[in-house]
Amino acid sequence: MAENKIGSMSENMAENKTENSTGNMTDKMSEIKPYEHKVQYYETDQMGIVHHSNYIRWFEEARTYVLEEIGFGYREMEECGVMSPVLEANAEYKTMTHYSDRVLIDTKVVAYNGIRLQLAYTVRDKETGEVRCTGYTRHCFLTPEGRPLSLKRSYPEIHRIFEGLMEISDKL
Amino acid sequence: MAENKIGSMSENMAENKTENSTGNMTDKMSEIKPYEHKVQYYETDQMGIVHHSNYIRWFEEARTYVLEEIGFGYREMEECGVMSPVLEANAEYKTMTHYSDRVLIDTKVVAYNGIRLQLAYTVRDKETGEVRCTGYTRHCFLTPEGRPLSLKRSYPEIHRIFEGLMEISDKL
Amino acid sequence: MAENKIGSMSENMAENKTENSTGNMTDKMSEIKPYEHKVQYYETDQMGIVHHSNYIRWFEEARTYVLEEIGFGYREMEECGVMSPVLEANAEYKTMTHYSDRVLIDTKVVAYNGIRLQLAYTVRDKETGEVRCTGYTRHCFLTPEGRPLSLKRSYPEIHRIFEGLMEISDKL
Amino acid sequence: MAENKIGSMSENMAENKTENSTGNMTDKMSEIKPYEHKVQYYETDQMGIVHHSNYIRWFEEARTYVLEEIGFGYREMEECGVMSPVLEANAEYKTMTHYSDRVLIDTKVVAYNGIRLQLAYTVRDKETGEVRCTGYTRHCFLTPEGRPLSLKRSYPEIHRIFEGLMEISDKL
Repeated sequence: MAENKIGSMSENMAENKTENSTGNMTDKMSEIKPYEHKVQYYETDQMGIVHHSNYIRWFEEARTYVLEEIGFGYREMEECGVMSPVLEANAEYKTMTHYSDRVLIDTKVVAYNGIRLQLAYTVRDKETGEVRCTGYTRHCFLTPEGRPLSLKRSYPEIHRIFEGLMEISDKL
Repeated sequence: MAENKIGSMSENMAENKTENSTGNMTDKMSEIKPYEHKVQYYETDQMGIVHHSNYIRWFEEARTYVLEEIGFGYREMEECGVMSPVLEANAEYKTMTHYSDRVLIDTKVVAYNGIRLQLAYTVRDKETGEVRCTGYTRHCFLTPEGRPLSLKRSYPEIHRIFEGLMEISDKL
Repeated sequence: MAENKIGSMSENMAENKTENSTGNMTDKMSEIKPYEHKVQYYETDQMGIVHHSNYIRWFEEARTYVLEEIGFGYREMEECGVMSPVLEANAEYKTMTHYSDRVLIDTKVVAYNGIRLQLAYTVRDKETGEVRCTGYTRHCFLTPEGRPLSLKRSYPEIHRIFEGLMEISDKL
Repeated sequence: MAENKIGSMSENMAENKTENSTGNMTDKMSEIKPYEHKVQYYETDQMGIVHHSNYIRWFEEARTYVLEEIGFGYREMEECGVMSPVLEANAEYKTMTHYSDRVLIDTKVVAYNGIRLQLAYTVRDKETGEVRCTGYTRHCFLTPEGRPLSLKRSYPEIHRIFEGLMEISDKL
């Protein structure tokens, strides 16, 4: 069943393909706009700024947005029987974000080896471009039973996409 | 399997039983202390008070605490194949709660008919006893597949407990 | 200072004005699109659906969006020295919302008397239009010191806007 | 006013003092039990485990608990006009935490230089002792106006406490 799923996902991704997936993904990736988040009142704390824990949630918003844009969202992933828990999360807070601010978040693949994936994030104020926060998350891939899963071996199609994304990030 | 689970849960609850479960539950319920919650910094908003959405979460904390105290926590419930989604949640905010305050939450069964359950909550400041918030939640029971489930028919043991709890709440 | 603020806010709102604010607001209100929210992974719980407490937060998202659209956002409100705490929040959960769903939220002024305000919300699935949740919130207006504030007396300009909104909601 | 506050805080802390604050703090610190947190249902996500962003919030729970235990809670800090925003937060997720688990969190001062503070956290399952998560946060100190504040210069009393805590952590 998972195989069938992967099948339809591949077709899904194939829509944007011509010769090679990397080339296509480069185009696809360069088209992806930064993720936009509008700060909500419930995200503030009594210091009058966004509570620091929310940036970790914004990283997830940006991450899932990018994965969906390339046709491999969390929903598709989980339907294929691929879980991708967070191994590490890091955020460096540079300047403060306030209620009703709009921020833009850039996401980059900074490391990928077929088993693990590292993404980096930059949160900027939409209006001024000032950096609010930078950070990264590290991920592995698991079966629903919690066993480690090598994307390279089990899902070579998806593996090539992440490889492509890393190459693109290198070029950016 | 679920049946076995129920079996062990019944035994679990039987530990406190003598002649009838209602009588026993009265004792058990009267022993249950109000649930205590300490206000965390991340629960405040820029108004300098607890964000109103958190009270809905505190109701859940109090609810799961009481269910665990009577031996039928959410974990046991879900292991038995009983889901209990929230049908309605209501909170009336009386006075403000601030960071590092301690609140006590009383939970009462106010309605139960074998299919649906209504619980009422009172949140009080631990120090002054002043009422901070009152509210209620309504619940039904579902199978993991999402089909309605009559506790009365499928789990008569659990049904009698909730009946007992309602009778006790009436007496309080 | 607050007075000056109100001054500039009035001008701000005046941009969209012609003869009377109610007429203008009718136009303005009918132009306001429903608020759109995309369900995030961190909003789900282990039942595999959106945790019920988040709808209360979505109501806030929709409420602040509408207030900003009419030129009287929470930021402007607080800068004017008007606090608007929530007196009551209610949500009735009709059907379940899942990760990555998009929902549209309609907000209506259902009661306003110069001192208190009640808003009603309808959360619908963006794709199917199916109602996910309905609810309401009640609000009062306070000075930063926490004293009750009659918008009708202190800020007649804003008062007329809310009156206008209620009239419009009546017509919808 | 802030000075008076500090005065009473010093007395507050003096209650536990005999000859030198470091010696006293060693006693005090060794008496501080690990912070206990019970996992709530609303902290889970659809993977059936605690959402990773919550550990950042638990670090805050543990941090504010320890500061309160030594008599310098966030409430006292903010009343003294000392803000302590988070500069960086990091969490490494080792094993999964599930609904209704109880975790114990140890907090250590790993760096302090009069201007900046770094704390390290270890989250363990209460029952098995298995490490669930390790992490750290870095903090600075600011005036309410957002200007950097040297604890060493402005609040030598508090400065000595943090110095003492670091020395103790070194010994642990």
